[in-house]
Amino acid sequence: MIRINENYQKLQSSYLFSTISKKVQDFQKSHPEASIIRLGIGDVTRALSPTVIRAFHEGVDELSQDATFRGYGPEQGYAFLREKIAQVDFIDQGCSLDPEEVFVSDGAKCDTGNFQELFAPDIRIAVPDPVYPVYVDTNVMAGRTGSFVKGRYEGLIYLESTKENRYVPSPEQLDSTPVDLIYLCFPNNPTGATATKEELAAWVKYAQKHQALILFDSAYVQFIRDPAIPRSIFEIPGARDVAVEFRSFSKTAGFTGTRAAYTVIPKECVISGENGKTYSLHSLWNRRQTTKFNGVSYPVQKAAAAVYSPDGQKEIRELSDYYLENARLIRLTMTDLGYSSTGGDNSPYIWVETGKDSWEFFDSLLEKTGIVTTPGAGFGTCGEGYIRISAFNHRDKVEEALVRIRNNLGPNKK
Amino acid sequence: MIRINENYQKLQSSYLFSTISKKVQDFQKSHPEASIIRLGIGDVTRALSPTVIRAFHEGVDELSQDATFRGYGPEQGYAFLREKIAQVDFIDQGCSLDPEEVFVSDGAKCDTGNFQELFAPDIRIAVPDPVYPVYVDTNVMAGRTGSFVKGRYEGLIYLESTKENRYVPSPEQLDSTPVDLIYLCFPNNPTGATATKEELAAWVKYAQKHQALILFDSAYVQFIRDPAIPRSIFEIPGARDVAVEFRSFSKTAGFTGTRAAYTVIPKECVISGENGKTYSLHSLWNRRQTTKFNGVSYPVQKAAAAVYSPDGQKEIRELSDYYLENARLIRLTMTDLGYSSTGGDNSPYIWVETGKDSWEFFDSLLEKTGIVTTPGAGFGTCGEGYIRISAFNHRDKVEEALVRIRNNLGPNKK
Repeated sequence: MIRINENYQKLQSSYLFSTISKKVQDFQKSHPEASIIRLGIGDVTRALSPTVIRAFHEGVDELSQDATFRGYGPEQGYAFLREKIAQVDFIDQGCSLDPEEVFVSDGAKCDTGNFQELFAPDIRIAVPDPVYPVYVDTNVMAGRTGSFVKGRYEGLIYLESTKENRYVPSPEQLDSTPVDLIYLCFPNNPTGATATKEELAAWVKYAQKHQALILFDSAYVQFIRDPAIPRSIFEIPGARDVAVEFRSFSKTAGFTGTRAAYTVIPKECVISGENGKTYSLHSLWNRRQTTKFNGVSYPVQKAAAAVYSPDGQKEIRELSDYYLENARLIRLTMTDLGYSSTGGDNSPYIWVETGKDSWEFFDSLLEKTGIVTTPGAGFGTCGEGYIRISAFNHRDKVEEALVRIRNNLGPNKK
Repeated sequence: MIRINENYQKLQSSYLFSTISKKVQDFQKSHPEASIIRLGIGDVTRALSPTVIRAFHEGVDELSQDATFRGYGPEQGYAFLREKIAQVDFIDQGCSLDPEEVFVSDGAKCDTGNFQELFAPDIRIAVPDPVYPVYVDTNVMAGRTGSFVKGRYEGLIYLESTKENRYVPSPEQLDSTPVDLIYLCFPNNPTGATATKEELAAWVKYAQKHQALILFDSAYVQFIRDPAIPRSIFEIPGARDVAVEFRSFSKTAGFTGTRAAYTVIPKECVISGENGKTYSLHSLWNRRQTTKFNGVSYPVQKAAAAVYSPDGQKEIRELSDYYLENARLIRLTMTDLGYSSTGGDNSPYIWVETGKDSWEFFDSLLEKTGIVTTPGAGFGTCGEGYIRISAFNHRDKVEEALVRIRNNLGPNKK
């Protein structure tokens, strides 16, 4: 008799964004006249840039002729793309990197979700709270979390990210039992917070001390404007021994519907086996990817490589500038209305203190204004009393949303 | 201390095709003058068809304008593609299907590899021998197989596919302890064998009796020419309760470098929990995909949908006719030389009895002729003494390969 992976039963209802999507559908059904403005899910709205489009078409054209046709590519990605990534995103920024340390994939959601497969079932895992749900749910499915009790999984260690610590957890929060795996995300989803070099260095030091591994998600790196903020965990000395970094073209270059991302695994990163032996994390992930993945669509890789041309770099800078201006306007309005917030300066997300139940605030905002946000509670216990507003939309939609918010929400009565 | 998933240590060296690729690289290095002909990995060589290319470009163009831009799509695939798949591949063939039962993905390798995540760790699994390595290796990684002893994993049940049973295993081969999960693949990779309706019906009956689940891989369905051969497991009455089907655009339409596939999960398919409850397999996979996957690139989905237009259907038929003619020529030559073989009529693979160690035959063929095949032993114990020859190449390369084989291999001395 075929039987279920019982861990699936520990999952909390459906994936957060599916729930929101359902609520929005229901709202549209009951208010067919309403014009909904989406500032919820972090999905870009602006077209791919001209240089990227040109390369994408060229890639398709190559597939149209036998002489230039490409079949299966390397599971790790084409060298032409891995080399550009290593050069522009790391070496030019002062981080040494071998192109072979870059694994191209179809999404950072997939990579951050699949990466836990490499580890023992009983490792101790620390996740931020609030947290991108994928880090948690994929470990639930793998049986590493225990049951969900009073809003948290018993077997996870939550790194509380609150107003008090500027939404940047520190290793000092942990008790004396070491954790083995640490998920960090900066600029943070959902809070928009960024970490300083010193704050990241404290985590690297912790990981070195306890032979822990840091999974560093920097999907939002493109929005950093402050030169003092580290763009990569590998800017921290020693990080190459204890960290993996996930990046994505989704927010960087508008690839949410195009699908490309990458994961960097330094070759010196090793993990331990029961027998006292150590294993190369790079080799393990390579084995995982060659067995379960068949590479990214060739024209998509061509398009991604074009991001690294001088024109491509200029164009994606302009794209992120546009969303950052949206973010500035949103934060200004919320501040005007008396709502305390963070993010939105080096991040496309604004994390707004609502001062009440965040699903209730979400529902009421949707009902009153037709605006979709993301309730903070959907990201964890520490998200209760917050909503996340995304700056990914057209300027006119954002402006319209802000008018509606001013007219319908009124000043925050604390 | 971060520790490894110990199951990875049970994996046998590297993924089969990576090993072959390494051997071929080494051969090329030591014989820089040799012109290698690849009849190994099942990778198509002919360009995408004009109708597909046109739609692919249109999809890219849509991403170039804000008004038509698409960000995140549904994780399950766009309705426009799911509907075409359901209509043309199933309903028009007499199988009822709801488009919502179709999950679009970036590859059948990923889907057949990831699907086991839904099941309990201690289910009993039957795999064909010879077998597509992904079915086995992904279960090894998940800890379901035990150790590798004398060429086989202790915890797997092997469905021996031999000359005696025409390479089509039957449930009668199994002992009295029921299996819970059965991997089947027809037209078969690597043997090229096809199963009759009666043979598939025996498996459906077995699955019904034991509440087992069949994972049916029909990645090579496009090569079936004999109208008596079932194209889908769902042609068998009762299969909707006990089977999932995997299909791919890779071999069907030349998408190996473009990346698109799909999995069909009938809504009536349920699996059991410890508590005696039953769970919808469709819902479980939906949860898995929404948590760990972000959908297929939009222009790729547009390209895949074009396969279903009348012109698209004509063009992909012509593509598969071309490879089938290659297959016929290969089989003819091998038969002439006195080698017994199967496949190649309703399949792009020819399974050739070499009568000796198959890695040795592979090495010797590569050394003497520069032709890459796949050693049968790489697919399992029952593959020893065979090689798989793939018909995926250009006609002139195939013809050249056959001349080299005639000149260098000589008649088979049994």
